Amino acid sequence: MANLSHDHGDHAFCPVHEAINILQEKWTLHIIRNLLDGPKGFNELSRAVGGCNPATLAQRVEKLVGLGILEKTIHSTMPPRTSYALTEAGQALQEVVEAIDRWARRFLKEPVA
Amino acid sequence: MANLSHDHGDHAFCPVHEAINILQEKWTLHIIRNLLDGPKGFNELSRAVGGCNPATLAQRVEKLVGLGILEKTIHSTMPPRTSYALTEAGQALQEVVEAIDRWARRFLKEPVA
Repeated sequence: MANLSHDHGDHAFCPVHEAINILQEKWTLHIIRNLLDGPKGFNELSRAVGGCNPATLAQRVEKLVGLGILEKTIHSTMPPRTSYALTEAGQALQEVVEAIDRWARRFLKEPVA
Repeated sequence: MANLSHDHGDHAFCPVHEAINILQEKWTLHIIRNLLDGPKGFNELSRAVGGCNPATLAQRVEKLVGLGILEKTIHSTMPPRTSYALTEAGQALQEVVEAIDRWARRFLKEPVA
């Protein structure tokens, strides 16, 4: 179960509205997509996501950990190594990424140079 | 067919990566979701999306028109009225919104006050 701690103001709680608020944060869908094939260390995730500066990426993954979408493991190696994996809630977003993938293959074509 | 005019840099074209770049722009998924039940005028769309300032909303809808996801109609009333509707490519994003909705109903719960 993802932990939801958004400010709702005066509006009634709407799950899909809240989910869009989470998923529309820049890099979030890229992070989730790149973890679907397995846990990654921070640097590996950073290379996979591409173009996101490390401070922003660190902030995004911490937020997703807080929401219960990612889990962080600190491996007791020397030096310690941190890896990130999708939780059950995060893995379930595979359906969303697959829907985006189907749409993209149907409607997005490489622009002519 | 959506028109894609993003800068790809040196990377090979990846449809799902490009689609995520489009959909992760703040308000975009809210705009698409709120047009799934039919075309809306600008003010009606603004109320439905909620919280997005009009200048930002105008910029987003124009971008989505340029991408071939929305179409704009100017009605020859006095004063002229503008409405926005999903194109075929935009309407096909219903599958993505429905996947988000299913995920949200399963994993997001209203926070305890």
